[in-house]
This record gives sequence, structure tokens and C-alpha cells, in this order.
Amino acid sequence: MAIWLDQASEGFEQQFAAFLTTKREVSEDVNAVVRGIIDDVRARGDAALAHYSKKFDGVDFAATPMRVSEAEIDAAIAAVPAEVLGALKVAATRIESHHRRQLPKDDIYEDALGVGLGSRWTAIEAVGLYVPGGTASYPSSVLMNAVPAKVAGVERIVIAVPTMKGAVNPAVLAAARMAGVEEIYRIGGAQAIAALAYGTETIAPVYKITGPGNAYVAAAKRHVFGTVGIDMIAGPSEVLVIADKNNDPDWIAADLLAQAEHDESAQSILITDDAEFGRDVEAAVERQLKQLSRSQTAATSWRDFGAVILVSDLRQAIPLANRIAAEHLELAVDDPEPLLSGVRNAGAIFIGRHTPEVIGDYVGGSNHVLPTARSARFSSGLSVLDFVKRTSILRLGSEQLRALGPAAIALANSEGLDAHARSVAIRLNLEG
Amino acid sequence: MAIWLDQASEGFEQQFAAFLTTKREVSEDVNAVVRGIIDDVRARGDAALAHYSKKFDGVDFAATPMRVSEAEIDAAIAAVPAEVLGALKVAATRIESHHRRQLPKDDIYEDALGVGLGSRWTAIEAVGLYVPGGTASYPSSVLMNAVPAKVAGVERIVIAVPTMKGAVNPAVLAAARMAGVEEIYRIGGAQAIAALAYGTETIAPVYKITGPGNAYVAAAKRHVFGTVGIDMIAGPSEVLVIADKNNDPDWIAADLLAQAEHDESAQSILITDDAEFGRDVEAAVERQLKQLSRSQTAATSWRDFGAVILVSDLRQAIPLANRIAAEHLELAVDDPEPLLSGVRNAGAIFIGRHTPEVIGDYVGGSNHVLPTARSARFSSGLSVLDFVKRTSILRLGSEQLRALGPAAIALANSEGLDAHARSVAIRLNLEG
Repeated sequence: MAIWLDQASEGFEQQFAAFLTTKREVSEDVNAVVRGIIDDVRARGDAALAHYSKKFDGVDFAATPMRVSEAEIDAAIAAVPAEVLGALKVAATRIESHHRRQLPKDDIYEDALGVGLGSRWTAIEAVGLYVPGGTASYPSSVLMNAVPAKVAGVERIVIAVPTMKGAVNPAVLAAARMAGVEEIYRIGGAQAIAALAYGTETIAPVYKITGPGNAYVAAAKRHVFGTVGIDMIAGPSEVLVIADKNNDPDWIAADLLAQAEHDESAQSILITDDAEFGRDVEAAVERQLKQLSRSQTAATSWRDFGAVILVSDLRQAIPLANRIAAEHLELAVDDPEPLLSGVRNAGAIFIGRHTPEVIGDYVGGSNHVLPTARSARFSSGLSVLDFVKRTSILRLGSEQLRALGPAAIALANSEGLDAHARSVAIRLNLEG
Repeated sequence: MAIWLDQASEGFEQQFAAFLTTKREVSEDVNAVVRGIIDDVRARGDAALAHYSKKFDGVDFAATPMRVSEAEIDAAIAAVPAEVLGALKVAATRIESHHRRQLPKDDIYEDALGVGLGSRWTAIEAVGLYVPGGTASYPSSVLMNAVPAKVAGVERIVIAVPTMKGAVNPAVLAAARMAGVEEIYRIGGAQAIAALAYGTETIAPVYKITGPGNAYVAAAKRHVFGTVGIDMIAGPSEVLVIADKNNDPDWIAADLLAQAEHDESAQSILITDDAEFGRDVEAAVERQLKQLSRSQTAATSWRDFGAVILVSDLRQAIPLANRIAAEHLELAVDDPEPLLSGVRNAGAIFIGRHTPEVIGDYVGGSNHVLPTARSARFSSGLSVLDFVKRTSILRLGSEQLRALGPAAIALANSEGLDAHARSVAIRLNLEG
């Protein structure tokens, strides 16, 4: 049973505010451990990686080299079913064509004064992608990170993936090859983040690290932020479905469960204007739960964090949706446009009854790395922009300097920065 | 005396590599203190702000209200010289017109399959700008942060500025008013960051915090990152000047000193192909140092971190410049174009002899908040993009779902995510 909130009931605002700030993850304080590991990797390099990989992943680099060989990638591809390879190819192609449109354009121009100004974009030279191991090792995530990096023009893409005793998910290797990534190390945790950020004898450092991970990976990314760029600190995932009663309750229940099966901390929320429909969806959730291989996870997520919110009119769902700022927002209604235009905070919006969020996870073409835990209020999903950076350009001639120099001198003097003032004044023969 | 490095000498590569990784700031470990302050502000709100502001800034909120009043802003503007107000206006106008060009455009389209895809940009609703106090309280920085936020469409902009006994720099208040910011609190340090991120009785929380600060502010921003967005972790500032012998050594010396006067950790680097010119610049630096009000700071920066790098040909300066990845790069040469096209890593480039970096600090129109400490390898200066976020949009009809669904189901099954597979399959009547 999920929680029910009724906008018409007294105390709704208070309940909803509390619901918004419910913590879904125990934030383990792993900082001390992470700092120790990072310091060790900086000091001992490969030896430290070997130590932690043996300890945490049970892999011995003397027997199984840290770097995944080309032959191993070849073998992995041969082991992946053709149907899956074909589906990965569909996904890669669509992700690439969508992300190509995100490439920013340089803007170099001259203003009315004759001052040359500009923004010039260049790719980051080297990027590290963290790919979680175990059950959360998703080939689709490899594509979602690596393809935009390739489109951006990143020359060197490195994958770090933790293993159980050295074995890497073959589909992950296939996806990496498909995206053009050949430099893959079987390392994980804070030690992998440290190696990517600072380098070791074997691994040259990268300039930015993207990709999700557990609490240790998140803490390590936070720690190295500044030395390298990072994408975001990912939290547990969520979906918000706004649905009218004309939906098949089974379809909506399936969408809620697709989110819930990810993780016990995942969150699935339904907003509807029809209580009976809400109850029908809940009943369908219970029925479908029994048939899932990950039913325990999904049931826990739905029980602890699932919610049905009842509104008297679906237009009232939009201000609530903007406060929830969901990673994924489905608009499963007859006429989505009026709702769509009011949505401000959401990672991605899935429009209409035939756009289950899962399509966006795999083959829609848009990115599935999206802001979680209400961070869509201030951040965006992964895109080509995450793999480029902008240099600004300024060019004055003597005439433009004469026009703008005095204002610069006035501001420099008011800020008490003599040498600033002088560097302009000396060119205008105002002193010296 | 700055350090000299000669590319022609043996051991250059080693020396240059060591030079690149020289730490310019002692990174104080202030995390424990910062965490305590943040927890206290979260627990006690305004009372904690009053406590720390009394302790660190010597201001009593019972006598001097935390929020700066409109009358105080009016009085401040009356106290700022007309020349400075005029110069701020020149700066604000130019910053605004340059940043308007950075507004990203929505991209909504239909692909060959008939799938609707899109990227939609919206402004962040509420942003906090941290403005350092004391000698580093710069009205120009207020404009550089607030104007792009306004251009982006941010509705609520809040300034936090620490004071000495409650007094705010009048020019800072004037710049805030000019940029349309009226919500200003005299708070600073980690307590200000905590208040902006989590809110107190008086201060509603914001969604993103930008602006530089000391080690406590930087640690606090790192800490709240994820709860709110942050811009970057700013380090000490630097300039790299690539200059041929046809420059007036005094001009180049003035530019090096304009950087050095900021901070003892600032860094000024000259790359030239003419040793005699390099010596002339050094001599000019020594002469000009004597005339500066901040000569002690500038002399320490130049002595500890200043550098002259000699190359046999200025084209060889470019690979070095890309490794240095300077915040500011001046190309003070006769023909800058061939050099310009090779620059990949730089926060901002200032082209030709009449574009001292200081113009970019104030009135060029481009932003002066730029990536420091080699982070131009992976990040960009502040822009309108820092104040907006992108929502991706996906829309399929039943036909498109039939076309793409099977690939999504194949990938979901290969990742062991039954409920994902089912949320597509159920719509295709493939089961149930």
C-alpha cells in the first residue's frame, strides 16, 4: 500500500510538504574511508588499486590484468545474443542522432563599438565513465554516457567498472565497443574515482568523471570535484505519472513498477483526479508485483515511498509536479498540451499513453541520465554540453580601448586595484 | 624574481610538469567546522545565523537587521561617486547584451519514425549569490553573477554578503540594485551557504548558489552540492601572457601585476620567444611593484608563483598553454590568429596588444567568473547556461511504440528488469 494524499483534505499542504522532504536514502558517512582510499591511490598508484580490488572485488591483477583486453571484448561480443546486440545498435543510433543536435555552436561577433566578442566550444580531451558493477551494471548506461562524449569529440574515453572476481558483464563490453570505447579497467569504488582523477602508473588521469555509483563512489566524486569535473551526485530514481481515468490501470501500474523495481529507495507517484482509478491502479500494482523477478525490491519501494495523490482537476497536478521536480514525468492524459506547457521542473517528460518512461531508458534517443531527488529544479540531464567547455574571446583595438578604458579604470580604482587600473591606463598614455 | 623555464634546456619537461602541479593554496581542512555550522543552521535557523554573524562579523541582528533595507540601498547609491555609478552602468549594459546571446533555444522536432523529441529550457526559480566581504567585495562580481541570472529569467535572486559590524560596501549595493536584486542579507561564511541551501525562518531556500568565497565557503558549497546546485569550486586566479618582443615591456608587466595583486596565491606567467624581452618585462615588474598600493601581495605572488617561460618559437607556446589551461590567456602578438586557433584549454582569451585582461574583468561584456587552477580543461566560465536547466521531451504514438518497443523489451530483459519489459509489452498486447 502506497501513501494516499488528497488535495481536498485538510492538512494536505502540510502532508505534501513532509512528503517532499522524505529522505529516501540513509546517507552513510563514508567520507573518512573514502578519503583514506583516495590518499592511498595517490600515494601508491597501481599497488593501491591492486590492494582494494583484491579486497573488495576478489580480483587478483597478477592473474587477471586490470585492463580488459581486446580479445576479452571480442569474446564478450560473441557471447551476447544477437537480439540484444541489435537492440543496443538501435539505441546507439538513436542516441547519437538525438545528441548530435545538442552540439553547441560557436558565436563570434563584433559589437557596435567594434569590440570582438565570442564563445568558442571545444571538447574535453579525456573523460572517465564509471559503470557500476553487479546487478546495476547496465549496457544502456554505457551508451548513454559514452555516445554523447563521442559526439562531443572527446578523444579519450575510459571506463572503470568493478567486477566480481574479474568478470565484466559481456553486454557492457559490447556497448563500450559499439560506442568506440576500448580503454576499460576492472576497478570500482572510491579507488577507481581516485585513479581516474589523479592517475596511476597504468591509468593516465582524465579531466572529467561521469556516471552513477554507490555511496563510496558518490563521496569520492564529491571529493575530487575541482581536480576534475563531475556530472552530478545521483540519488535514488523516481517517476511521477499524471493520469486520467481513461487509462488502462494495468498500463499505469506497470510504469509505476518499472521505477520501483530499480531500487528500494526508488519512488513511484501517481497523481490522478479519479479516486476509483487510483484504487484500480493500486490493485493492478499488487497483482503485477507477484509476477516480477525483482518483486521484493519493487514491493518495498512501493510500500515505503509510493504515493497516490488525488486532485480535483488535473490542472492542479502541475504546481505539485513542479514542486516534486521528478526525474521522470509521464503525462498519460487525453490532451497533454495544456499540462505540458505548465511543467517547469522535470528531468524528462513522457507524453501520452503510448510513451512509457521505459522507452526513454533505452531507445527513445534522449538521455536516461537525469536529475534525481528534486534536483531537476536546478540541473539537467546528461548531454553533449557535459563533455564540452566554452572559452570566451575578447578583442579590442586601440580605438575600442579608448572608448571602454576609462570605465574600467574607474571600477578598478573603486575596488582598490591599482595594478588593474594601470594595465589599462598605461595603454592610454594616462600615466607613466 | 619569478621562476625561469627554458624549453631548450634539458630537464624542461620535468620542470614544466612540476610547475603545473605546484599547489598554490594550502587546502585547510575545514570540513568538520563547516559541517557543524551547517547542522546548526539547519537545526536553529535564524538563531544560528545570529550567533555566527555576531561571532565572526561582529554584527548584532537585534540592532542591525539581517536583511538590508531598501532605505540602506538608497543611501548607498547616494554615497557612490557618479563616475563609478556610470562605469557600473557601462559594465551592466555590456554584460547584459553579451549574455543575451547565450540564451539557449528550445529544440522540439519529430524524427523520421514520427517520434517527437525535444529539449526545453527553463530558468531556475531561485538563486543565491555569495558576495565575499572585506577587500574582496567587488561590485563588478555582483554584476557578473546577477546579470546573467536575470537574463536567464531567474525570478528570485538573493545576495548573501558578510560584513564588518554590519557595514556593506555601498558599491556592492549599488550594483545589486542596478542588476535588479533587492533581497540582500548581511550573512557570510558556511552559515550563509547553509541558510541559502536549507532556508531559515527569514530566508526561503534557493535552488542554486553561485559566487566565490574563502575556504569555509568553498567547503560549505561542496557540502550542500546536490541539495542545491553550485557553480564551481573557485581556486586562486591566474593569467598567462604569450608575448613577442614587439610589446612594450611595461604594458606586459602591468598585466602580470594586475593578476598578482589579487592574492598571494595568484599566478602570472609570461611565455615569450625572446629572453631579453623577458628580462625587460621582469625589470618593469620590479619597477612598477614599488608604485602599487597592494605591492606586498603582488610581490609575494610574483616571487612565489610568477614564471617566465622561454620558447624558441611562439607556436610552441600553444601546447604549453593548453596544459596550463589558464583562467586568462593574453595573446599579445602581431598576428594572433594562428595561435588562437590552436588554443583549446583557457577560460578566456584576450587578443592583441590592446586587450588587457582587465577589460574582461569589468567592461568587455563577457563574464569574469572563469575556471581557475587548470579547470578550463573541463569547465567553462559563468554564463546564462548556469541559470537554466533543460527538460527532455519524448512522445510516441502507438505506431512508434510498435516500432521501438521490441528493442526496449530486449534490453530490459537482458538487464534483468522485468517490470521495464512489461511496461512496454503490456501496451503491445505481447502479454497479460
